[in-house]
Amino acid sequence: MDDLAHMRTALALARRGLGETAPNPTVGCVIVRGGRVVGRGRTAQGGRPHAETEALAAAGDAARGATAYVTLEPCAHHGRTPPCADALVAAGIARVVVAMTDPDERTNGAGLSRLREAGLEVVEGIGGAEAAEINAGFCKCIREGRPLVTLKLATSLDGQIATRTGASQWITGAAARQAAHALRGTHDAVMVGVGTVLADDPELTCRLEGFRSTPVIRLIVDSHLRIPLDGRLVRGAADHPLWIVHRDGADPARRAALLDLGARLFEVPAAPVGIDLAAALAAVGEAGLTRVLAEGGGTLAAALIRADLVDRLEWFTAPVVIGDDGIGAVAGFGVEELGRAARFTRIDASVCGGDIRTRYRRD
Amino acid sequence: MDDLAHMRTALALARRGLGETAPNPTVGCVIVRGGRVVGRGRTAQGGRPHAETEALAAAGDAARGATAYVTLEPCAHHGRTPPCADALVAAGIARVVVAMTDPDERTNGAGLSRLREAGLEVVEGIGGAEAAEINAGFCKCIREGRPLVTLKLATSLDGQIATRTGASQWITGAAARQAAHALRGTHDAVMVGVGTVLADDPELTCRLEGFRSTPVIRLIVDSHLRIPLDGRLVRGAADHPLWIVHRDGADPARRAALLDLGARLFEVPAAPVGIDLAAALAAVGEAGLTRVLAEGGGTLAAALIRADLVDRLEWFTAPVVIGDDGIGAVAGFGVEELGRAARFTRIDASVCGGDIRTRYRRD
Repeated sequence: MDDLAHMRTALALARRGLGETAPNPTVGCVIVRGGRVVGRGRTAQGGRPHAETEALAAAGDAARGATAYVTLEPCAHHGRTPPCADALVAAGIARVVVAMTDPDERTNGAGLSRLREAGLEVVEGIGGAEAAEINAGFCKCIREGRPLVTLKLATSLDGQIATRTGASQWITGAAARQAAHALRGTHDAVMVGVGTVLADDPELTCRLEGFRSTPVIRLIVDSHLRIPLDGRLVRGAADHPLWIVHRDGADPARRAALLDLGARLFEVPAAPVGIDLAAALAAVGEAGLTRVLAEGGGTLAAALIRADLVDRLEWFTAPVVIGDDGIGAVAGFGVEELGRAARFTRIDASVCGGDIRTRYRRD
Repeated sequence: MDDLAHMRTALALARRGLGETAPNPTVGCVIVRGGRVVGRGRTAQGGRPHAETEALAAAGDAARGATAYVTLEPCAHHGRTPPCADALVAAGIARVVVAMTDPDERTNGAGLSRLREAGLEVVEGIGGAEAAEINAGFCKCIREGRPLVTLKLATSLDGQIATRTGASQWITGAAARQAAHALRGTHDAVMVGVGTVLADDPELTCRLEGFRSTPVIRLIVDSHLRIPLDGRLVRGAADHPLWIVHRDGADPARRAALLDLGARLFEVPAAPVGIDLAAALAAVGEAGLTRVLAEGGGTLAAALIRADLVDRLEWFTAPVVIGDDGIGAVAGFGVEELGRAARFTRIDASVCGGDIRTRYRRD
């Protein structure tokens, strides 16, 4: 039982780093000797130092003979820093409890082997399900070469995100909007289609005081680089990273102007409609993103679902009915048989002020 | 505390009669002497005998000096039976606890006055909120001359009730479908538009074994009497009442044929689109309905919402996304400003198998 309680502390530490450690996973580490916590650490912004380094530094000599709880297998490879597995051995740690192994082929069991070879006791799988959820973006990148995609939508009961005139502020209440900002805070990037940019001129920042210390990347899907140069996104590109994926053959002058204003551009192949989103996600995954929050609009949502690229749904439903002459949350994508519709599995459901929040995963 | 516990029993008895006592309210009565329940009763099918009559008959002489818990003020008027207030006095009841007064102008406080004049102690308001919900249909009829309307919808997350080809079986799972049949069981009538009849050839019966002992009335909104004479609804009209509201000027031959096949027809004025739904509800309220469950389709749902005739929403949401080229739950009704959209207040939210069930009231 103590093992689980200490691992929960480590998982809570790890969770605080969501959105700020990419391309690395966010890891938590707690060092316990004689039932007392002597060191804690989590992956720092940008992915370094690692959690174990921080926790060992805090523990100092108290690490000798202690148990280390780590939410992900300690690394075994020499990167910018020596391997964490070696550091745990060198510090005299006697026992290591890990929630899950690291799917990175440079570690993938090698960290645990090194610990065992050095005579440390190793326990695996404590808090494994929670760790898997925290590491879902990192693992997705390792296994599939693209970030985890969470699609967040805020709709009326009948699935509309705006009235037919485009009025959308606000369908959901203050609690749901705050929760949506927290979602931005725990993702590496916020993604929208250029249609939403043209309609709303959004900022796409995480506006929760103190929630995160680095700006979230704004990622725009914009086949033909129609994003306005004088809009909020481009104007803010110096302070808040602005990434744009566009199709091949976009206007070179437009490209040059956007680069000059500080945007980062990704050219990917065209698709029958828009761009190849799988290629776009692969490109931004290669550039370091592990967790992407897609916020629509309906065209992007439909394209992501059609391409089976939505891993999580975060759906906020307001107690309002607009009617289907409004603007739908998800554009049509040609479903004729119900068996072809996209089915998800509920993670949980809760009330969120006057609204309902439901969370789903794609299995 | 005992008063509330006994009233809860009476409320549970009352609830069992929902859908089967119209035009009367369903009432529960529990008679308690010396802490022991000596009689129970609820309004019988069709509204007679009353709950008090049944409970007093069960109690017999044990009613003398006892407390009667009644979910609605005992009636004070002579109808087909003598007033219940008089019966309680005659039986020697010493104390009467009522959840709420009867808004019927023939009673409306007169029942309580009669009890007090006869020397009985009267306590009011115990379990009042629950009683108000049970009696909502009856009270709506008394106060507004129309039945309570509950709109029930089963949709995808994005508010669709079918794919673009009309495939709709099944969006929601078995638990939600069973809950929907239970809703039919607790309403006097199930209402759909003729579009749904033409598309689905439904039965609109309550298919839960033993849930109710009288058939639920099927109520069709059918301006031009397009309902097929050889469909399930008309073929079953002999066993399950079939009521049809249509606009003035409908084909007399069609009217005659439907009457001949056992349908009951209501002619109401036309509206700019379809019929005047407020007039339709007034007509069926006059004919005895107190609780109507509207099940769509999208045209009827939109017309009811636009006319502000939806008192309760029962919304089942399946974890599936169809896209807005499907068939929307609520047709467009011209909302441009969000302030003009129909807003509801949540009653509760729960999981229902793999689906989410949310319930709302219109304030």
